[in-house]
Amino acid sequence: MDSARLEAFSDGVFAVAITLLALDLVVAGPGHGTLAHQLADKWPSFAAYFISFLTIGIIWVNHHAIFKNLSEIDRTLLFLNLLLLFFVVSIPFATSTMASYLRQGGADSHLAAALYMGAFEGMSIAFSLIFWWSVRHEHLKVQLAPGDARRATVRFSIGQVGYVVGIGVAFVSALAALVISGLVAAYYVFEQTPRRDAAADAP
Amino acid sequence: MDSARLEAFSDGVFAVAITLLALDLVVAGPGHGTLAHQLADKWPSFAAYFISFLTIGIIWVNHHAIFKNLSEIDRTLLFLNLLLLFFVVSIPFATSTMASYLRQGGADSHLAAALYMGAFEGMSIAFSLIFWWSVRHEHLKVQLAPGDARRATVRFSIGQVGYVVGIGVAFVSALAALVISGLVAAYYVFEQTPRRDAAADAP
Amino acid sequence: MDSARLEAFSDGVFAVAITLLALDLVVAGPGHGTLAHQLADKWPSFAAYFISFLTIGIIWVNHHAIFKNLSEIDRTLLFLNLLLLFFVVSIPFATSTMASYLRQGGADSHLAAALYMGAFEGMSIAFSLIFWWSVRHEHLKVQLAPGDARRATVRFSIGQVGYVVGIGVAFVSALAALVISGLVAAYYVFEQTPRRDAAADAP
Amino acid sequence: MDSARLEAFSDGVFAVAITLLALDLVVAGPGHGTLAHQLADKWPSFAAYFISFLTIGIIWVNHHAIFKNLSEIDRTLLFLNLLLLFFVVSIPFATSTMASYLRQGGADSHLAAALYMGAFEGMSIAFSLIFWWSVRHEHLKVQLAPGDARRATVRFSIGQVGYVVGIGVAFVSALAALVISGLVAAYYVFEQTPRRDAAADAP
Repeated sequence: MDSARLEAFSDGVFAVAITLLALDLVVAGPGHGTLAHQLADKWPSFAAYFISFLTIGIIWVNHHAIFKNLSEIDRTLLFLNLLLLFFVVSIPFATSTMASYLRQGGADSHLAAALYMGAFEGMSIAFSLIFWWSVRHEHLKVQLAPGDARRATVRFSIGQVGYVVGIGVAFVSALAALVISGLVAAYYVFEQTPRRDAAADAP
Repeated sequence: MDSARLEAFSDGVFAVAITLLALDLVVAGPGHGTLAHQLADKWPSFAAYFISFLTIGIIWVNHHAIFKNLSEIDRTLLFLNLLLLFFVVSIPFATSTMASYLRQGGADSHLAAALYMGAFEGMSIAFSLIFWWSVRHEHLKVQLAPGDARRATVRFSIGQVGYVVGIGVAFVSALAALVISGLVAAYYVFEQTPRRDAAADAP
Repeated sequence: MDSARLEAFSDGVFAVAITLLALDLVVAGPGHGTLAHQLADKWPSFAAYFISFLTIGIIWVNHHAIFKNLSEIDRTLLFLNLLLLFFVVSIPFATSTMASYLRQGGADSHLAAALYMGAFEGMSIAFSLIFWWSVRHEHLKVQLAPGDARRATVRFSIGQVGYVVGIGVAFVSALAALVISGLVAAYYVFEQTPRRDAAADAP
Repeated sequence: MDSARLEAFSDGVFAVAITLLALDLVVAGPGHGTLAHQLADKWPSFAAYFISFLTIGIIWVNHHAIFKNLSEIDRTLLFLNLLLLFFVVSIPFATSTMASYLRQGGADSHLAAALYMGAFEGMSIAFSLIFWWSVRHEHLKVQLAPGDARRATVRFSIGQVGYVVGIGVAFVSALAALVISGLVAAYYVFEQTPRRDAAADAP
């Protein structure tokens, strides 16, 4: 099975999920205080929307990078990809719940933040499983040099460690957990050395 | 007519439907009890979401498998595919109704569960019609060996019998029907022998 | 400009619009009468959903048929296609409004039905403009035989006349207008002779 | 990295965003005054829907025009494209807020209109950054003649100046800002000379 249709379906899911994030951006409308006040009150929604948008965008970029290098999609990869999409699709829910509870403080905000970090962690684990299965079963078109494989592992680990730490931090402060998810996203935007090296190494 | 655009359109519908499932995952927000309590109360939504996500994912995998083996798409197949998508698109509604009524018990929960199983059964019948039409009109690129055709028929039958039994069971216990839909999905995730055989048989 | 990306974008819009139709299929939930009663009360939603689903599906089939025969997409066609999509995107709104008012009777139901038929008529006119522009500017890969062009014109006219009549009928009976929209859709499902002829004529 | 999957993902986001615009087109239903009255009351929604649909459509047309001429997509372009999509995805929210407040007048309507123009301005700036980066890093397949580059710059500037002026005007009159956004869209529909020249100049 070639990867074209898997990518088309996944792109569709990524595109819908990233756009549905914005459905949570809605103000109550006239008669609920000034618009400026409503928008200011909704800042957790805007912050969470921005971070979730960026995170899904980054996963899409990485999804593309890995699948264009796969020579064969077996049934296990199909279902690992469904697992990844399962977490992607749950992100709008996790984002909206996080945004609703962030300003409440207390146990509810901690649980909402842990849920939010958990969705990211689940997505991150599914992505690592896809990578690990591909390498182990030699589905890669271009074999990774040992150095690249090591660096790729480090790159994945940073996200996963970040999100696990974030789940723990969530139970102390939801806001701190949100900041961690933002930092992880920022790391993946700017951390581009391994990719360039890999490209340079390719024949 | 080639199948590329039919697959692109179908992938779009699958992707939107699978993502819309998650729109039902929403908690009432602050002021409606603790978040932990709300999430626990919503377990039917999470269970139904998980099963529906998996079921649509499996149908997508099988849809891909069949259409890449079709040499020609005639007008009847276009409309049989629309019939399939009609049931796919109704799954978020059936899922959400099922989730709303599961914990109520009584006649309403039975009807909601029957509706849920009915949507799956309709999807399954439409899929079988596509397969049957393709074989009968010799639209397949690779002809099936008699053994493969028999096994494919058995595979389809298990799902359809499962869902028909599920519709009956729904009128006794909505929860038991939900379990059946989960078992059918699990069967299709793990039942992969025919596919591997078919691949090994292909020239 | 080739048509691949125009088709991909249009397929996306068709797929989202056809799936959003089902968002209107929602019951009020426990505490609003029995589920059976609620579902029976919602029959206009189910009927309108079915007809709109079929109509968008048919337009998608025809959209594919025409664009795969276009050798060149000029700027005018891009905007005529946007006009078509504009009406397609408005169909979920028109469908939901029609379904809300159908059982009210009176002036409101007449207006809602006229709006519903009007969305179909607008879509139908945009589609005819695309066809007319393509023929007139000789963008077709396979030139139509005079007989085919005449038959294509007749096919388009039937839909347009049907919808115009439907707009008029809407002001007498919303239900009769809905029946007309269903009959037009049924006509396009079963009326397939011109297509087969065209295929047979192609070199 | 080739541009095919970037375009597929972007097309998906454009398609979902343009269709979600119509989710704001909903009337309260029976019992909230006559339908005619409700529809007349919602005219800001219809006007804003029309302008936003056209604006996203135009950006899609231009997105296609620029990316088919890119020989290479580097990581910066990937993230600039995500920035563009970020603003595209926020347009349904900005449109719905604008439509809710337009008829209220006063400070809230001014802020809502400024938000609306701001989303368009952000989208326009992201698009210019994509163009500017492509030219500067020589990613274009067909190099622009100096005249074409100048005309392209003028074309972009008109939109951006229009939207900046619109943000200012919004604080005087929301309606006037809406008219400006409509005029900018109309300009891009009819202003097609540079494109034709560019095509004629191409070898």
